[in-house]
Amino acid sequence: MPHIELPQGLPGILGPMAFSPATAKPMNELAEVLLRGENTLTSGERELIATYVSYGNECFFCHSSHGGAAAHHLGGDGELVDAVREDAASAAISDKLKALLAIAGKVRQGGQEVTDADVELARERGATDKEIHDTVLIAAAFCMYNRYVDGLATWAPREPEVYEISGKMLAEEGYVRAGARLTETAGNAA
Amino acid sequence: MPHIELPQGLPGILGPMAFSPATAKPMNELAEVLLRGENTLTSGERELIATYVSYGNECFFCHSSHGGAAAHHLGGDGELVDAVREDAASAAISDKLKALLAIAGKVRQGGQEVTDADVELARERGATDKEIHDTVLIAAAFCMYNRYVDGLATWAPREPEVYEISGKMLAEEGYVRAGARLTETAGNAA
Repeated sequence: MPHIELPQGLPGILGPMAFSPATAKPMNELAEVLLRGENTLTSGERELIATYVSYGNECFFCHSSHGGAAAHHLGGDGELVDAVREDAASAAISDKLKALLAIAGKVRQGGQEVTDADVELARERGATDKEIHDTVLIAAAFCMYNRYVDGLATWAPREPEVYEISGKMLAEEGYVRAGARLTETAGNAA
Repeated sequence: MPHIELPQGLPGILGPMAFSPATAKPMNELAEVLLRGENTLTSGERELIATYVSYGNECFFCHSSHGGAAAHHLGGDGELVDAVREDAASAAISDKLKALLAIAGKVRQGGQEVTDADVELARERGATDKEIHDTVLIAAAFCMYNRYVDGLATWAPREPEVYEISGKMLAEEGYVRAGARLTETAGNAA
């Protein structure tokens, strides 16, 4: 049961976001820019960073939602998403993305964990300053979203299909629009 | 030296925020609502939560900045801010705030660390659902800000006077306005 009384039937972050629209607005805007704004990293790559960090933080709702979004961006390749979450170093992704995921993993543990060598490796593999910046901020932001979801003990559906559907919506419509629509859908189902 | 090339002369989070205005905007808006929006927790109490979490995460820039803002809200009582950072349980603050700081400390370690008993204690001491929600989100958000600042290895001035001045500006003008003004001031000084 959630730690505070939240609107019924809304999974994960949607409950607290409906409880607190004033904070939900900038949080959704940040996710929108970070994961779907114009960028040399694809949305699929950025969603992989999001699900990787959320998996490390053991946030079931966030790693499932963003895993679903990543899979949709990757043409439905859920196996690649699973591989990245479990062992990014051996997954079938670019060497640049592996280096960025290593930075994201360090940020997850704490900002000071990131070393010059981590950044140098990403740069050698073609990462730009903006890509390094965005990786650090995506990882940092998911340390917030994950703690918001679990710190309030929100409810999360366990059925994988749910996250396939929400992943498609998040990937196609984005965080500001899909957030509102998911709230409505779940509210009606409750 | 920062891990990426940032605008010169801007301390802490101001460098990356100037580097990436599109993400700075929702991040400042979130801080504004969380720390200065209408609330039954005073801004002083909320800034104490921010500096407490940042101190736990060993983020010098954030705990100094928000410690400065907290001190300004508290009428200049920097000693109380120091006491809260170092041992909240014995500081001269309300029992309710102590229970909320304990929740914030758990969120800092990970969302799942927060127990029903932690929340029950806060509620017994008079905390509302909104106050518990806001405490969790302030703590979660500072896990983001702290990692953003340190994950990019930003520069932070060591002089306490700097944080007295910036704390006054943040407390009086807020995150959206003061952020812009601090960027300008530091830019001119560089």
